[in-house]
Amino acid sequence: MSERPVGPADLTVTLANAKAERVKRVAALAGRSARSRAGVLLVEGPQSVREAVRHAAPRVRDVYLSDEAAARHGDIVSEALAAGLYVHLGTVEVLAAMSGDAQGVVAVVDSTGTSLDDVLAAGPRLVAVLSNVRDPGNAGTAIRVADAAGADAVVLAGDSVDPTNPKVVRASAGSLFHVPVARAPLADAVTALQRAGLTVLAADGSGDDVLGEDGAADPASLAGPTAWVFGNEAWGLTPEELSLADAVVRIPIYGSAESLNLGTAAAVCLYASAAAQRA
Amino acid sequence: MSERPVGPADLTVTLANAKAERVKRVAALAGRSARSRAGVLLVEGPQSVREAVRHAAPRVRDVYLSDEAAARHGDIVSEALAAGLYVHLGTVEVLAAMSGDAQGVVAVVDSTGTSLDDVLAAGPRLVAVLSNVRDPGNAGTAIRVADAAGADAVVLAGDSVDPTNPKVVRASAGSLFHVPVARAPLADAVTALQRAGLTVLAADGSGDDVLGEDGAADPASLAGPTAWVFGNEAWGLTPEELSLADAVVRIPIYGSAESLNLGTAAAVCLYASAAAQRA
Repeated sequence: MSERPVGPADLTVTLANAKAERVKRVAALAGRSARSRAGVLLVEGPQSVREAVRHAAPRVRDVYLSDEAAARHGDIVSEALAAGLYVHLGTVEVLAAMSGDAQGVVAVVDSTGTSLDDVLAAGPRLVAVLSNVRDPGNAGTAIRVADAAGADAVVLAGDSVDPTNPKVVRASAGSLFHVPVARAPLADAVTALQRAGLTVLAADGSGDDVLGEDGAADPASLAGPTAWVFGNEAWGLTPEELSLADAVVRIPIYGSAESLNLGTAAAVCLYASAAAQRA
Repeated sequence: MSERPVGPADLTVTLANAKAERVKRVAALAGRSARSRAGVLLVEGPQSVREAVRHAAPRVRDVYLSDEAAARHGDIVSEALAAGLYVHLGTVEVLAAMSGDAQGVVAVVDSTGTSLDDVLAAGPRLVAVLSNVRDPGNAGTAIRVADAAGADAVVLAGDSVDPTNPKVVRASAGSLFHVPVARAPLADAVTALQRAGLTVLAADGSGDDVLGEDGAADPASLAGPTAWVFGNEAWGLTPEELSLADAVVRIPIYGSAESLNLGTAAAVCLYASAAAQRA
């Protein structure tokens, strides 16, 4: 290939051919099969790339910036070079060919396979489990909320979206590089979490326990190690899924809304746990 | 016009011409100027239309369903007829021509102009103020969260998105018909809310007070009438906007996330207020 990677020592080489093989290979990572074959994910946009460089440098294979973006985001360039990463400068057109939604900054990062065992070995006290969450934006938002609330891991269960989907990466705003994300069947995850001493609470409008009030969801009970299970954005959790949990908890609705969406429900539940665990 | 509206007495007339003037007029409501000229908004999808019929029937001018959707959502048809509304059945093609994202159910509803004075006259104890929130999905989600948390009103300030935007209506999942939504300049809104006895808290990562801890954001202080101000999704609140508030409060970030998005931040703040006000 004509463009050689740029190491810490020089930053003058420019990728100028939007039709080059390397550019096509990066662009192809929008597709799941290409990502899976290469064992990588595509990280788009300055915020996400900055987080990948800062929190997951050993996994970053290549960082690409347009000349324009490199001038604007000098911190990303210098942090990446300091971490010994390969940084490639390209034209605005080259970066646009790699991703239409990256503001001139992309990175190719090894996808890691965090396993349920890895998650449990770390002795987690707060875990978010997403069951059959299909929308990448919702999954990414929930991962970001779990990170903010100090959760130790996220488990994607059932037929949930692929966490290497670029839209998941983007909506997680870097949190995919902060929090371990494992995939496991729901029943396996719940059993393993219970064995590890976590109380498993299903968040669902049908719950008998009301968050913040009596039963399994009062602030005192929430102080122990807890896993929250959140269901599909359209139909929630099925009766079988609900039956796996130690308790079903509903968020109180004080107005006339029928429900909350996944991200906001996760925010309320996970922050209630975070507050109780730190009280 | 050839299709006459269907009243409670009959439901047999079918709109079959996707190019009819009436169909075009409904479809045109996707555009802001057409909505503004007609003084109406377009409500798309069974969930939102059901909420409009149930909570805002006096404002509903017309309800349209495809034959298929009418069979599936008999509750909407019967509730609309019971409320004396005009219900029109059309072909699947007619409904698809009216809206590409409505699953065969749309309604045309008068836009109301709730004023800041209306909001204050009701003696609100919890108000959400969105300043320069541009994304309709974010604004709708925040309105839905405000409704769920029992807020008495939402104020759209600055250059925020038009609340009659169909994407706002859809993301609010009906909450636009439950909670009064007013438009006002931020400074006017803050002054009026303060005069009405509300403490105005700006939610921002720069805050000295931490939600749930000391200062203006501890659970005891949150028990009084409170208005929360949330800023633009990209840049948050400007220094001038922050200076209008009685206090700037940040949500604690326990993990490595840089921040929360608008919807999830609103969920955490408004539910903290709701819990404190009900303790």
